[in-house]
Amino acid sequence: MKVFSTTFTLSTDERTEITDITKLVRDAVQQFPVQTGIALINTMHTTCALFINEFQAALIADLKALIERLVPERGGYKHNDPRYSDCERGNADAHLRAALLGRNIAVGVKDGELALGRFQSIIFAELDGPRARSLRIQIFGVS
Amino acid sequence: MKVFSTTFTLSTDERTEITDITKLVRDAVQQFPVQTGIALINTMHTTCALFINEFQAALIADLKALIERLVPERGGYKHNDPRYSDCERGNADAHLRAALLGRNIAVGVKDGELALGRFQSIIFAELDGPRARSLRIQIFGVS
Amino acid sequence: MKVFSTTFTLSTDERTEITDITKLVRDAVQQFPVQTGIALINTMHTTCALFINEFQAALIADLKALIERLVPERGGYKHNDPRYSDCERGNADAHLRAALLGRNIAVGVKDGELALGRFQSIIFAELDGPRARSLRIQIFGVS
Repeated sequence: MKVFSTTFTLSTDERTEITDITKLVRDAVQQFPVQTGIALINTMHTTCALFINEFQAALIADLKALIERLVPERGGYKHNDPRYSDCERGNADAHLRAALLGRNIAVGVKDGELALGRFQSIIFAELDGPRARSLRIQIFGVS
Repeated sequence: MKVFSTTFTLSTDERTEITDITKLVRDAVQQFPVQTGIALINTMHTTCALFINEFQAALIADLKALIERLVPERGGYKHNDPRYSDCERGNADAHLRAALLGRNIAVGVKDGELALGRFQSIIFAELDGPRARSLRIQIFGVS
Repeated sequence: MKVFSTTFTLSTDERTEITDITKLVRDAVQQFPVQTGIALINTMHTTCALFINEFQAALIADLKALIERLVPERGGYKHNDPRYSDCERGNADAHLRAALLGRNIAVGVKDGELALGRFQSIIFAELDGPRARSLRIQIFGVS
């Protein structure tokens, strides 16, 4: 069994920006000589998220509405209050939304390809952009 | 180190149906000659969830009430609105509930058995049934 | 490729107690001769959580407020009601909060160290303490 890893950077343009990165991960996986294994993808940040779902514009709009309803951008957060925090970004909502959505996914590799279901996309959610973000992909398996 | 995988199908009867699949996963793990390693379980779908918790009828009722409160079945979703979406199932709630609950678990394998705590069950949540659902189990480790 | 595992116990003092365990995990990883691989950390319980985020006092206060708002301690839960449940701890909120926050993390190991981003801490959330809690760390990789 072998292990490979690669890092890449995503640049985002909006504060909240939800992107389908399936192709990017798929291409990274195909670079490595693993036929059967697992791909692990991590963000290296605390204010963005990674998860698997269907990537459809209307559903993404619903997801944005959901996170704004559950964790409003302006929620009287201590992390955004100079009396309690030296954070200058005022991004408590982004941290809390990331805690609900997750920041790490693991997907099987089968016949050298990501083993995703028909409607499954790997989705990256920038929650405090615009920023440059690093993702790390690791691939474990046998060739 | 070796890697094994197997896929199985669950048929669900209700729209929202929460099932203890610990035995099914345990039996799958025992088929393979791994003494020490990890079992990774993924759903191949975007409207069901996998997680670990205590499986107790009253708690499952509480969980159903929670997801209905946080993500109501009827929430004015764009994904369910033909002006914005060609989805015919009207299942935005199921996608969003899955995003909160997760769809992937990783459990250790120790002495050839799943390393679960006393009250830990592996729980599958159908959120848009009835459907036939595929789960994929991968086991990595040494014999 | 090799696999190593170790278990350790955390004792908590409060009902809800959120702790930075990065150093503890980092030290555990360094014990083992893995240069490139993955560390998987699981709680063995159903009423505590593990996740990665920034560990800052004001943000932790915001996180506690968020989980109390989304999943109130007193929420009329069946799991806490002797008519439906024999649970004596009345801890439905802790189970449900754990379901939202997650109980399992996977982090890369690179050059023998946890591959964490600058602001990423590994955070343990006791949700039904005080208790003694077991965590299991597994490390897979090559030396």
